[in-house]
Amino acid sequence: MRAYNFCAGPAALPTAVLEKAQAEMLDWHGKGLSIMEMSHRSKDYVAVAEKAEADLRKLMNIPENYKVLFLQGGASLQFSAIPLNLLGKNNKADYIHTGIWSEKATQEAQRYGDINVIEAGTTLDGKLAITDQSTWNLSDDAAYVHYAENETIGGIQFAHIPETNKPLVADLSSSILSAPIDVSKFGLIYAGAQKNIGPAGLTLVIIRDDLLDQAKAEIPSLLKYSAQAKNESMVNTPATYAWYLSGLVFEWLLEQGGIDAIYQANLAKAELLYGYIDSSDFYANPIAKPNRSIMNVPFTLANADLDKQFLKEAEENHLLNLAGHRSVGGMRASIYNAVPLEGVQALVDFMDDFAKRNA
Amino acid sequence: MRAYNFCAGPAALPTAVLEKAQAEMLDWHGKGLSIMEMSHRSKDYVAVAEKAEADLRKLMNIPENYKVLFLQGGASLQFSAIPLNLLGKNNKADYIHTGIWSEKATQEAQRYGDINVIEAGTTLDGKLAITDQSTWNLSDDAAYVHYAENETIGGIQFAHIPETNKPLVADLSSSILSAPIDVSKFGLIYAGAQKNIGPAGLTLVIIRDDLLDQAKAEIPSLLKYSAQAKNESMVNTPATYAWYLSGLVFEWLLEQGGIDAIYQANLAKAELLYGYIDSSDFYANPIAKPNRSIMNVPFTLANADLDKQFLKEAEENHLLNLAGHRSVGGMRASIYNAVPLEGVQALVDFMDDFAKRNA
Repeated sequence: MRAYNFCAGPAALPTAVLEKAQAEMLDWHGKGLSIMEMSHRSKDYVAVAEKAEADLRKLMNIPENYKVLFLQGGASLQFSAIPLNLLGKNNKADYIHTGIWSEKATQEAQRYGDINVIEAGTTLDGKLAITDQSTWNLSDDAAYVHYAENETIGGIQFAHIPETNKPLVADLSSSILSAPIDVSKFGLIYAGAQKNIGPAGLTLVIIRDDLLDQAKAEIPSLLKYSAQAKNESMVNTPATYAWYLSGLVFEWLLEQGGIDAIYQANLAKAELLYGYIDSSDFYANPIAKPNRSIMNVPFTLANADLDKQFLKEAEENHLLNLAGHRSVGGMRASIYNAVPLEGVQALVDFMDDFAKRNA
Repeated sequence: MRAYNFCAGPAALPTAVLEKAQAEMLDWHGKGLSIMEMSHRSKDYVAVAEKAEADLRKLMNIPENYKVLFLQGGASLQFSAIPLNLLGKNNKADYIHTGIWSEKATQEAQRYGDINVIEAGTTLDGKLAITDQSTWNLSDDAAYVHYAENETIGGIQFAHIPETNKPLVADLSSSILSAPIDVSKFGLIYAGAQKNIGPAGLTLVIIRDDLLDQAKAEIPSLLKYSAQAKNESMVNTPATYAWYLSGLVFEWLLEQGGIDAIYQANLAKAELLYGYIDSSDFYANPIAKPNRSIMNVPFTLANADLDKQFLKEAEENHLLNLAGHRSVGGMRASIYNAVPLEGVQALVDFMDDFAKRNA
């Protein structure tokens, strides 16, 4: 049986997607071979790749003046590619710091240019929160402003898109496709696939046309957005199977009613889990309400000595991968698109039972 | 039914491997989730990753002073990573030119340092061949010597490993695991997975310990061999599913009797196909015998006007992806490890029938 999987990434995929991939594994559409055994330049594969992009454009309502790239290397390789492509003549950018992932992006960018780090963490009634933009010391001469829309480890998320007249660059790894977002407000959006898109090994970059061709000459060819855009993400062989699986996820999302529908489902899941945590004396979430992530819900038990017991019993109840990130401890339930409401209900039921037995 | 797939890459995978992956797709080893839905840091996944490396080490007899890295980006990203990591103080390297892939590696390396290009193409009795090493003008002060052991597009392969007192760097993308090779002769071996290893999206790097930590400070973190080695290829989330599938391929190779056994099978396939081509007035292969690839067999028809008809009829006979690379035309049969002797026999039977009907 399939368990409920709350892993932060690589994360749960829709069962229907895995079933389709399973059925097609040895013989894709009666062609006598697996999709992963096909040339990326074959007519059949190119059609699969193009349909995936078209479906993503439909889901996210991506304007025509944006290119969509299906790359390798994870969001972390974009931590390098973004400054190498976009720092420009001033060699300067603003990075908003809200947690571990925005910090990692900053550290990598600092190797290439002058990075203005804006500390945006604060507390609100004793809970962690993101400061109001009015307090930020943004540079006049930054080539772009970078932020991580949702911090996967901390479980802290922006309530609004920052306003800037500079190109806005956003790491959407753990929130892409979870809620509607106005792509036209961004210069560049990037996301590792292994949360809401597909399997690990694929990275999406959505980039406005005018930012494509600003790379310094000496950067690795595969990191050059202009080269990847010109070659439809096939400067070399892309991660064809991961791209195909992502296409199946996009089809599944359209079948669910698109992003508006999945957002309503995600809100219901988040409200159920946060609502239960808030009603409990046994569990606590450290984030102020306006900045709570709807995808990653960290929580602690009243007595940390019970953590191991909690994880063990959860697993026995088919509730998997609830341990918090090794850097912070505690618990974390990642409730991405593929985690159904019933899974969150099962988790809440288990949490309640556990609390009653251990209070 | 499964067809015989002669694609140059992404290429045929063993049917037994795909069947195992299919069976495990939704529920890996009764754990309630797919292997691609698991954290790369989970105990279960780390065991899968480590077993894949151990099996590869066994297959290739990799000495202990070599690290094995499972990376993303394809061999083409290594075209950048290799010079960025290894060019050293002299900023100089020798690149042996034998075809399109060694040329691509050279062009990328030329963006970072002083590259001495050694033209190693020649003709022997009117056929293409690789010059004897005694004619090469190798540099005294090169940081390394680079070559492509097998040119996938040209179908030309080295008969011997070049001798050098510099670190030898080899692109083995289309020949790795096809024949025994003495790893200790190399400083670095790299290979895109999508021929003899697994699906596209994974790249193997086998690197001697002393070469790990020579990168210039400003290179992207993910391209730094020292960082990847220190983090067991998990500086960030690796291509977990591709890594898992590669592990299944390694297990399959061990079941076949290892590299010696698969090499004998590969020799039999190559002898069958080249033998038929040589015996025919209708087909021709352009490569001199000592340098014929045992993996990629390009051939032409006596009348190029028949190419389309040949490909169409081949496909009707379940013999797929025989068109030559778009840059050279003609035909090419890639007969990687996963293509069985029966597939090559079926191809030869079809070729013979086609020739008789069209001579």
